[in-house]
Amino acid sequence: MDLVDDIRRGEVRAIARAISLIEDLEPEAELLADSLFPHTGRALILGVTGSPGAGKSTLVDRLITLERRSGHKVAVIAIDPSSPFSGGAVLGDRLRMQEHATDPGVFIRSMASRGFLGGVAAATGDVLKVLDAAGYDTIFIETIGVGQTEVKIVELSDIVLLVLMPGMGDEIQAMKAGVMEIGDIFIINKKDMPGADKLLMEVEYVLSFKNPGEDTVTNPIVMTSATNGEGIGLLREAIAAHRTEIARSGKLEQKRRFRLERELMGVLNRKIHQLMDVHIEVSKQLPDWADTLYRRKACPYALINKQIQNFLKEGRGDRTN
Amino acid sequence: MDLVDDIRRGEVRAIARAISLIEDLEPEAELLADSLFPHTGRALILGVTGSPGAGKSTLVDRLITLERRSGHKVAVIAIDPSSPFSGGAVLGDRLRMQEHATDPGVFIRSMASRGFLGGVAAATGDVLKVLDAAGYDTIFIETIGVGQTEVKIVELSDIVLLVLMPGMGDEIQAMKAGVMEIGDIFIINKKDMPGADKLLMEVEYVLSFKNPGEDTVTNPIVMTSATNGEGIGLLREAIAAHRTEIARSGKLEQKRRFRLERELMGVLNRKIHQLMDVHIEVSKQLPDWADTLYRRKACPYALINKQIQNFLKEGRGDRTN
Repeated sequence: MDLVDDIRRGEVRAIARAISLIEDLEPEAELLADSLFPHTGRALILGVTGSPGAGKSTLVDRLITLERRSGHKVAVIAIDPSSPFSGGAVLGDRLRMQEHATDPGVFIRSMASRGFLGGVAAATGDVLKVLDAAGYDTIFIETIGVGQTEVKIVELSDIVLLVLMPGMGDEIQAMKAGVMEIGDIFIINKKDMPGADKLLMEVEYVLSFKNPGEDTVTNPIVMTSATNGEGIGLLREAIAAHRTEIARSGKLEQKRRFRLERELMGVLNRKIHQLMDVHIEVSKQLPDWADTLYRRKACPYALINKQIQNFLKEGRGDRTN
Repeated sequence: MDLVDDIRRGEVRAIARAISLIEDLEPEAELLADSLFPHTGRALILGVTGSPGAGKSTLVDRLITLERRSGHKVAVIAIDPSSPFSGGAVLGDRLRMQEHATDPGVFIRSMASRGFLGGVAAATGDVLKVLDAAGYDTIFIETIGVGQTEVKIVELSDIVLLVLMPGMGDEIQAMKAGVMEIGDIFIINKKDMPGADKLLMEVEYVLSFKNPGEDTVTNPIVMTSATNGEGIGLLREAIAAHRTEIARSGKLEQKRRFRLERELMGVLNRKIHQLMDVHIEVSKQLPDWADTLYRRKACPYALINKQIQNFLKEGRGDRTN
């Protein structure tokens, strides 16, 4: 495939075209992803998540600048929960990042999440293959806004940066309830705002409950002021050190193997849906089935079990006759 | 099934036992859910979501008190993202609600979400059937903590209450980015805190962008102070009025039909997974498949396509030979 060669040479137009094929679920996207797959595994994938307003985009901007000074090629995928309400702020973030837009070593792309988690992870996984095969050394996946996409970020990243800021008292309760698990490196941004030291203590406190037997990798906490550029060098060193640590301990390999398992399950699910759609016309019949249920003329499990029996009988042909 | 009769008579021990069967994925849970299904559709299901610390549990507490005064039976399902970190706060919330624990007309149950969204919606859907068939008039589904479960709340509820509080400047950016779509009724809790009026204006502003052609149902905004009990009566009236409005406009029916479609798809997915596990031993082979990929000896789509071909060939028996 010529497109594969062009991507591997890092040609931006080929990369953009490949991403569009993947996003539009074109039939050739699968073969493309498979053709690129043997050339992947080199890039470091950094997930960036945290509260809206915590300064994620500015941090990523600053990190890009440092990465570029070291001669690294950098890509950013911004996952954007598409919404009738998502207006100025999100677009503003994207525009701000365009300061790197004239730099051929930086590739930035927003991906709409199209409603609730629908297919983002699958498409993003294939887009990561394009960027990885194209030779980007560091790939940021950044969530915009709310927590619905955080989960997917974790599944796709080698290292997750969790960005916090002072003055969000409720943040800590959220952390207790699960967000803290998401992060590998904790960033207290806007460190000059009141409450930064308190937040640091709270994060240290919450992290102290992490079961040491379960996870021997340390979780660095870095204080930054992204707008001034303070702490960004330290953050970059922390990322590099963490990468070395997880590579040495085998945790990076473990994460990547697990990611491949998830990806396979995802592909399997989508393929099976296609198959079921052909054999028992699920998409077409679904409203009728729901109608039967709504009128309480059938029950959910019984209805589905019957459909699957039909599928198997048809699939197995004369064997069951 | 005796259990079905006991549940329909509202016997709490039968209800608790049924929920345990569902949570533990016992084989008899399916038949139980189907046997209860014809007796469902009467309860009003209220989803309660919002930022941690916004006062969701206290609000629900207050609403329970009013519902009880009207002689309604009330159930609460608190979805609890299980986490090594989730400690005191979550437990505290649950304990606080226990002020209703001695009231036989109130049933409260926490459900752990067991990691990332894994099966919560499916199990919660079946638990709702138990509570609905048991005669609870109002069922609250409340999320604890972060946004990962918000999506599921929306899928399972007739009406979603989105709880906000003043002083969370970043909240608004989050709202723009999608959270506002989740809510049917907007609650500004802690209304005596500074910034409540500003938040009200902001919420009104953001809601003004809602496409009127798309959704003719109005979205009430109610200001409350749950700790003092202020505004709770108004909130309850707003809920009742909203229910009447969506019932009249057909939106409630539409939501419930759509919920049934989702449920059917969920059951279908789980059933197919079981089937694939029997035929191509997915769970058993997955680590080996991932290993092959990790060593770049195979490609994701090609590997899965081959497995599905094997499944179909085996399934179809001698027809393909």
